[in-house]
Amino acid sequence: MRVVALAGGVGASKLLWGLARAMDPSELTIIVNTGDDIRMHGLHISPDLDIVTYTLAGAVNTDTGWGISGDTFRALEVLGRYGRPVWFNLGDRDLATHIHRTALLASGATLTQAADSIRRAWGVSAAILPMSNDPVPTIIVTSRGEMHFQEYLVQHRAEPEVLDIHFEGIENARPAPGVLEALDAAEAIIFCPSNPLISLGPILAVAGIREKLWDLRERVVAVSPLVAGRSLKGPSDRMMAQCGCEATSLGVANLYSDIVGTLLIDIADAPLQSAIEAVGIKVVVEPSVMRRDEDKDRLARVVLALFGPRAVAAPAVGQVMSSE
Amino acid sequence: MRVVALAGGVGASKLLWGLARAMDPSELTIIVNTGDDIRMHGLHISPDLDIVTYTLAGAVNTDTGWGISGDTFRALEVLGRYGRPVWFNLGDRDLATHIHRTALLASGATLTQAADSIRRAWGVSAAILPMSNDPVPTIIVTSRGEMHFQEYLVQHRAEPEVLDIHFEGIENARPAPGVLEALDAAEAIIFCPSNPLISLGPILAVAGIREKLWDLRERVVAVSPLVAGRSLKGPSDRMMAQCGCEATSLGVANLYSDIVGTLLIDIADAPLQSAIEAVGIKVVVEPSVMRRDEDKDRLARVVLALFGPRAVAAPAVGQVMSSE
Repeated sequence: MRVVALAGGVGASKLLWGLARAMDPSELTIIVNTGDDIRMHGLHISPDLDIVTYTLAGAVNTDTGWGISGDTFRALEVLGRYGRPVWFNLGDRDLATHIHRTALLASGATLTQAADSIRRAWGVSAAILPMSNDPVPTIIVTSRGEMHFQEYLVQHRAEPEVLDIHFEGIENARPAPGVLEALDAAEAIIFCPSNPLISLGPILAVAGIREKLWDLRERVVAVSPLVAGRSLKGPSDRMMAQCGCEATSLGVANLYSDIVGTLLIDIADAPLQSAIEAVGIKVVVEPSVMRRDEDKDRLARVVLALFGPRAVAAPAVGQVMSSE
Repeated sequence: MRVVALAGGVGASKLLWGLARAMDPSELTIIVNTGDDIRMHGLHISPDLDIVTYTLAGAVNTDTGWGISGDTFRALEVLGRYGRPVWFNLGDRDLATHIHRTALLASGATLTQAADSIRRAWGVSAAILPMSNDPVPTIIVTSRGEMHFQEYLVQHRAEPEVLDIHFEGIENARPAPGVLEALDAAEAIIFCPSNPLISLGPILAVAGIREKLWDLRERVVAVSPLVAGRSLKGPSDRMMAQCGCEATSLGVANLYSDIVGTLLIDIADAPLQSAIEAVGIKVVVEPSVMRRDEDKDRLARVVLALFGPRAVAAPAVGQVMSSE
């Protein structure tokens, strides 16, 4: 079954890790946010593309959720010696990815081609597509001024109050090749538990994507990134509250009500079920906190099962299933 | 006393290390070959500038003569995974230098400014100037085709027969800011023991430099890079023979006869003294092989002393001198 997932970075990757094990990963296409891409030291850095790739390769640093396991930071130390800004962590092995991507882009390749080169080199079978090959930097308007999302998140630790969010250049951004086609061909579309404002928000703002999902709504399942009003990773809860959304799974449902058929919420949010159903979204209540690998596997299988028994292809390790 | 040294990479750096200890290094200006600069992975690599800088910073890998002591190669391993050419060794800490330089150049800085930023960050007091801010790649015409000097030296291990040498773009290359001025102001000009064809050759080929030295010849001392017809480092001997030069200190003298007043040759080459003098160059015979740091110190002091007692400023460690 052809599955498309919309993904940000760390939160999304947990579910993606489970999905790639619970189904034939070559049937999985992941459309990834590039709004938090940033140029540092002349290098094109695509944090979410890399997190997704490293995670599916089994190479991600599981302590942080980003970067490569066991990476060192020798180059960064020397960049600091040169007086360069080093608030954005770049490991030595990770740097090679940015160098390779930047060199490919400089030679005329698209970000799509660069992402594909990188995921193939890491042996990842799932297709990993940037949402767009046009730059759409996420700019956060804060109480301390406008800043790139990475400056807000990493340099300022998400401390400034968020007043507004812009996706710069979004009006001219086109979906990357394969994105609309993948959505058209998808039998299942999964919104990973990512920040709806600045992770899935940029993807949904690219011309044609949200409109496409209006027609596909019945086959869209979103996993809420909020549990009991708290984001499990990152500043989603605070950002939503500061942007005037309710920082709960109901707030998530409101943001997705035109494009999501089913919202999976954690058992802690069960009291929100009828309010969410009132905005026209079906609700599935399941434990959704993914701490251990078993949690990721389980949630992935639960999500896939919502699309019918055919969706869950591969038995989990140690589990005997009758093949479909 | 203001001293200018013309330098390639590894061979030159041994003498430079001694010079920077035997004199006030802030009086030393080093004009460095950039003919073997190369772009790899989109990064601007200046091997000779970096070797000189790392050496004077006491940071060079003394086993190889290039790169940073104790550096690791994690990024390079991943670049290899991406199918990129990895025959040119790039350590993780070293990569930061190339990234910083490339970023500065991309932001509009000159190579001169980049080199200065780098040497200051490493606490090097001597001025380190690229010969030119215009690219002048050294192209080696070999029995296996034309190739960049680094491809010849590193990728092909200097194995192909050298048929000819070009400095591409040399006709339009101007001396970098400060180069001619430093030569004008110099009381002593030292040719380091570098390959005369592809290390000092490119410097001397930049418009105005050789012509300037015609007038300054009496204050130019060259240290021969050949001892008993052999280069101590690199393929100078073979290249000279293949290019129709005599691969001895006499061959070196022939290449420098219009611009060098004095040639320092090793005691092994003493038999060549009268033949070298016959081409109009004074000869100094001294042990010139620099294996240990004491050798570098000693040779530097010998060379400086050729410019008079004022030239040697700082007493070597453990040595008592009356101050001049």
